[in-house]
Amino acid sequence: MKKITAGAIMLSMMFAGVNAQSLKSPDGKFEMDFQLKQGVPYYNLKYNGKTIVEDSKLGLRLFKDTSIKFASEIAKPEDVKFDLNNGFTKVDEKRDAKNETWQPVLGEKKNYINHYNELAVTLNQTSTDRNIVVKFRLFNDGLGFRYEFPQQKNLNYFVIREEDSEIDFPTDMKSWWIVADYDSQEYQYQETKLSEIPARWPKAADANASQTLIKNAVQSPVMLKQEGKEPLYINVAEAAVLDYPASHLEVDAQNFKLKTHLTADRQGAKGYIQTPSVTPWRTIIVAPKAEEVMDSKMLFNLNEPTKYTDTSYIHPTKYMGVWWEMIIGKSQWAYGQPESNVRLGVTDFSKLIPNGKHGANNTKVKEYIDFAAENGFQGLLIEGWNVGWEDWFGHSKEFVFDFITPYPDFDIKMLNDYAHSKGIKLIMHHETSGSATNYERWTDKAYQLMNKYGYDAVKTGYVGDMIPRGEHHYSQWTINHFYRIAEKANEYKIMVNSHESVRPTGESRTYPNYISAEAARGTEYEAFGGNNPDHQTILPFTRWMGGSMDYTPGIFQTKLDYYFPGDKRFVKTTLVKQLALYVVMYMPLQMAADLPENYKKHMDAFQFIKDVAADWDDTKILSAEPGDYIITARKAKGTENWFVGGITDENKRDYTVDFSFLDKGKKYEATIYEDGKDADYINNPQSYNIYKKEITSKSKINFKMVRSGGFAISIKPVK
Amino acid sequence: MKKITAGAIMLSMMFAGVNAQSLKSPDGKFEMDFQLKQGVPYYNLKYNGKTIVEDSKLGLRLFKDTSIKFASEIAKPEDVKFDLNNGFTKVDEKRDAKNETWQPVLGEKKNYINHYNELAVTLNQTSTDRNIVVKFRLFNDGLGFRYEFPQQKNLNYFVIREEDSEIDFPTDMKSWWIVADYDSQEYQYQETKLSEIPARWPKAADANASQTLIKNAVQSPVMLKQEGKEPLYINVAEAAVLDYPASHLEVDAQNFKLKTHLTADRQGAKGYIQTPSVTPWRTIIVAPKAEEVMDSKMLFNLNEPTKYTDTSYIHPTKYMGVWWEMIIGKSQWAYGQPESNVRLGVTDFSKLIPNGKHGANNTKVKEYIDFAAENGFQGLLIEGWNVGWEDWFGHSKEFVFDFITPYPDFDIKMLNDYAHSKGIKLIMHHETSGSATNYERWTDKAYQLMNKYGYDAVKTGYVGDMIPRGEHHYSQWTINHFYRIAEKANEYKIMVNSHESVRPTGESRTYPNYISAEAARGTEYEAFGGNNPDHQTILPFTRWMGGSMDYTPGIFQTKLDYYFPGDKRFVKTTLVKQLALYVVMYMPLQMAADLPENYKKHMDAFQFIKDVAADWDDTKILSAEPGDYIITARKAKGTENWFVGGITDENKRDYTVDFSFLDKGKKYEATIYEDGKDADYINNPQSYNIYKKEITSKSKINFKMVRSGGFAISIKPVK
Repeated sequence: MKKITAGAIMLSMMFAGVNAQSLKSPDGKFEMDFQLKQGVPYYNLKYNGKTIVEDSKLGLRLFKDTSIKFASEIAKPEDVKFDLNNGFTKVDEKRDAKNETWQPVLGEKKNYINHYNELAVTLNQTSTDRNIVVKFRLFNDGLGFRYEFPQQKNLNYFVIREEDSEIDFPTDMKSWWIVADYDSQEYQYQETKLSEIPARWPKAADANASQTLIKNAVQSPVMLKQEGKEPLYINVAEAAVLDYPASHLEVDAQNFKLKTHLTADRQGAKGYIQTPSVTPWRTIIVAPKAEEVMDSKMLFNLNEPTKYTDTSYIHPTKYMGVWWEMIIGKSQWAYGQPESNVRLGVTDFSKLIPNGKHGANNTKVKEYIDFAAENGFQGLLIEGWNVGWEDWFGHSKEFVFDFITPYPDFDIKMLNDYAHSKGIKLIMHHETSGSATNYERWTDKAYQLMNKYGYDAVKTGYVGDMIPRGEHHYSQWTINHFYRIAEKANEYKIMVNSHESVRPTGESRTYPNYISAEAARGTEYEAFGGNNPDHQTILPFTRWMGGSMDYTPGIFQTKLDYYFPGDKRFVKTTLVKQLALYVVMYMPLQMAADLPENYKKHMDAFQFIKDVAADWDDTKILSAEPGDYIITARKAKGTENWFVGGITDENKRDYTVDFSFLDKGKKYEATIYEDGKDADYINNPQSYNIYKKEITSKSKINFKMVRSGGFAISIKPVK
Repeated sequence: MKKITAGAIMLSMMFAGVNAQSLKSPDGKFEMDFQLKQGVPYYNLKYNGKTIVEDSKLGLRLFKDTSIKFASEIAKPEDVKFDLNNGFTKVDEKRDAKNETWQPVLGEKKNYINHYNELAVTLNQTSTDRNIVVKFRLFNDGLGFRYEFPQQKNLNYFVIREEDSEIDFPTDMKSWWIVADYDSQEYQYQETKLSEIPARWPKAADANASQTLIKNAVQSPVMLKQEGKEPLYINVAEAAVLDYPASHLEVDAQNFKLKTHLTADRQGAKGYIQTPSVTPWRTIIVAPKAEEVMDSKMLFNLNEPTKYTDTSYIHPTKYMGVWWEMIIGKSQWAYGQPESNVRLGVTDFSKLIPNGKHGANNTKVKEYIDFAAENGFQGLLIEGWNVGWEDWFGHSKEFVFDFITPYPDFDIKMLNDYAHSKGIKLIMHHETSGSATNYERWTDKAYQLMNKYGYDAVKTGYVGDMIPRGEHHYSQWTINHFYRIAEKANEYKIMVNSHESVRPTGESRTYPNYISAEAARGTEYEAFGGNNPDHQTILPFTRWMGGSMDYTPGIFQTKLDYYFPGDKRFVKTTLVKQLALYVVMYMPLQMAADLPENYKKHMDAFQFIKDVAADWDDTKILSAEPGDYIITARKAKGTENWFVGGITDENKRDYTVDFSFLDKGKKYEATIYEDGKDADYINNPQSYNIYKKEITSKSKINFKMVRSGGFAISIKPVK
């Protein structure tokens, strides 16, 4: 490996001149150059000799490090001399390499391979005598780079005005993206050319509970495709976003160029930095096959191993929830009349006039417990169990919940005792209403309550504008909050399933109890306006690249006019596609989101949800194209059982599963769930066939997925 | 009393027409009218028939209640229809009266008298069908009024854009003021005409560690004087600033008008309100004598009685501190080299290179304990005991202190054991560096540590810009923080002496463990640039109106060239004036701020500090003129001992104390501390005479105070 690297340097010196440093990937397919042009740092990237990224600028702009206090006018003319984007000379160069295999606590595979060559260039800005390091890691699936700020005399504290890391593509490309926003990722995915993004952008930005849009910019990760005879799939993302704002990507549509745009706080600052410090990694994953991009573990590899000393409490869980019925409006989170004006510590909730639709009541919860227990689930989420929901949203109310006081009709002790007697653990719900300061005041008491009653997982939520009011969901302070919560939960051996938080970028390697973050449109949006039928075929290429999401699949009763005659809302998939999502969408804390009454009508199909695993020893992306279809096979943790899921977008599609991933010579029984011939996600979503078949590694089965349909297969060795 | 009130109504109806409501003070000297003019609320105020306040507008401007999220442009055209300042009709009027005597836990007198007549006018805004109440309380020393927002269908949540409570004076007046600022009150007092404020304002705004100035506005309380044959002294302030921003006063210099200006958060919002809610009281204290204004307890009366169930742990304390030597630069808070870049939880402080000047070291602290114990003190403050001081300031660093980890040379157990063995309690120091979010995360652990080692008082500090970064020191969130800390400290039976926090406005009635708040230039400023010699003669008329301040008197070595040859800094008083401050400046947690070595040279003068009380059964303001002089006599709690303090400004001044406040027929021994004949605050500050004299209530003694000098008398009954 050293030899290859040395060769790369020589090659680079020939082509790029003595100022350039070159680096190759372990397999030699990727090559990148770093160079200074008139003191400005640039890098580029080639794959199999083809330019993927043209010479692209690096650097940061800063505020003067002592001018922390900003008024509305924050930029000062003298700030420019503090920028870290020019006047550099190279003073050192270090190379390193790693080829390690590590085991995620919960993961898509038993082993993740972290294999890269590294180049770290130390740059000195002569005029200020400050050093920064630009560190590149070239993997067999692409490039990661970041800035490092060593502690030094002239660089101890600073405030970032902007990180200007450019990715300059040579050509236009197809792109899958959502609009950039400091507070929400809950947007409909768009499929356009890079060059078409500005034209589409205004139409792509629909209303959201809390939003701060960045015009013409898109969210990270963004998925790209160079079309043609030899297509290339490119994923642009970031990794290890810790003590730093999340980034977005400004789009230069004329030049096919992306540029980092960090989330600001309300006074325009984009990171308060104390050295030694490192930025998140900017990542560019490249592969000739879409499946390889989806399979990349680069974002996880770029995070640090966990420092947790005990991860034994972290376990895969399948759960049900008193939830979907609130989402669709059949029952309510609140106990009192809607929009009552309540105050914790003042209002006597037992004296409120009940609205009669409170979901989290003893009777209903016991019914859910019974059904979940009968069907082998481990957990049951209950939302709306705690006081404060009457006016929880939209008032910038800080003390909105205390996370410890149940509504009068929720007997926390009785219900936990009842659940435990049946092998079910209740899953806690902590909606913060965006009031993070308030949540931090209550976490100890709230987690102590969880420990007392035996809850080991919590779903957190951040709906609405953040408090502190100067922060956004994705600004540095709030990101620190999310991982502070992870650490605090770890103290109490609690798993966290976070909603409305920042998208994960591989941090579950470091914080393995931080199971997932929502940060995209989940199933709930089917009740709020709908997800496009291709939605689930894009998410694994974008939102999922850095970690799981609580998508909450499993809706059998997709048409909401079942509950509310005339209601036009519906979940835009067939029933079978809902099954397939359990395999396609990795989530170790996986929900069966529909109501027991709906499952009871389709216990044969429900069997797949009962059988499917939530944590895996192996994963094979059999076939995938963003926006079109995904076929995924996974091997359940610690077993010889496999599960296959296939989904398609708004187009019907045939796919033949080649079972060659199975052990040779072994016999398996496959239980197959497929769309009925007459199935249709709009007109007849609940039509399906189920049959069993003996298969081997030589078997092939053709599936006819209807529009927004799919198939699911449960495979067990024949004993 | 009812009769008088009824008479007042009739009188008012005659003069002001049927739309006006009149109210008189219990003694009949004050009279005010409320009326609507074209739907806009107005009030006025007369004293002995003379107009003190002309018809002055009332009202608030609001943001639309659901538009909580603000961008840089927050005002929307449609907001104006949500304003609560026009279109009103009167729908109800309630009158009430109270004459109660209550006992402060710690106070200037044993009994505070709360005696007022009340008028509450309910107004309905027809266009929006919203009711507000304007409540007036007329005391024998002036007027308080506030807005009340009852919970109602159309008024549940709103955000204040501004409160526009005007005070329209008929004439120009002399005024004592400091510049308005959202983050600091540490300014030099100015004495100008009201009309001259704008001209003086720019010169009055010097640099501060954290400041957000409001041009041409002044801080509350402001002291005013109508000069002439029959002068009137007027104090404009506020009371009970809770869950609301602190207010400043915009100055209309042409019309001699003041108007409320609330502290905004960084997005321009001035209070997030949920009904039912009340604003702070706007107060106008009026008296023909300055002494009566200073003696007013109106701000305390306008606060609610405490809900604390146990106040037995709250006690007056005289303390010394390892402090002044850091302030002047003789020793340091930090243990490591200055401006080291440290991280809590990462930096090994035992391996830092010591700077050699760390004040809070075992040897020095023991010396202070010895001296404090020998001289009858109860407490010893030690600043700089905990890790993190190396880079605590100016970097917007959130995790700057943990409040539980001592420096390597501070043995917390040993020192507390040593202190307790000598009857001394150590006083805890929690500098937050303005990082309130971080402090809230640590308070439980920090107060548990205090309980463990027997600390019962903490000095808190908020130097520098606030975190949350969207907040100011005096914005609503931060004010809620200060009283949240008071309540949290009460849980642990801890007294709080707060610094750099918002000025108190009588809240110690409700939070009696919140002993004091700094919020003005204290003695420390003598080392940072100096206080004018008249500073202490203005503070009791302004900053002190609503509660105590840790002024830290008792500097005997006033010239700093004693420590640093050539150093021009000096405390701008004589030594005797320092003694007098113990009586003039009420503070139940009272410091003797100088170094033991300096007291040892003047043990005769130090005897006054040893003798003087910190809590009182009675107080007589014998004579006072803002900016000129104050002579105060106080009777020590639970004893027959009296103490008298007299101070003068930059002018020498004679004053004859008439001891008629003493019990008739009793004999007392007075120990008298007076400026030496040759004393001078610049040239000879340490010259003093001490003598004893037997006195009775018929005695009179003349004192010749030199410029910035004073006198102090300790009086005990002869047994």
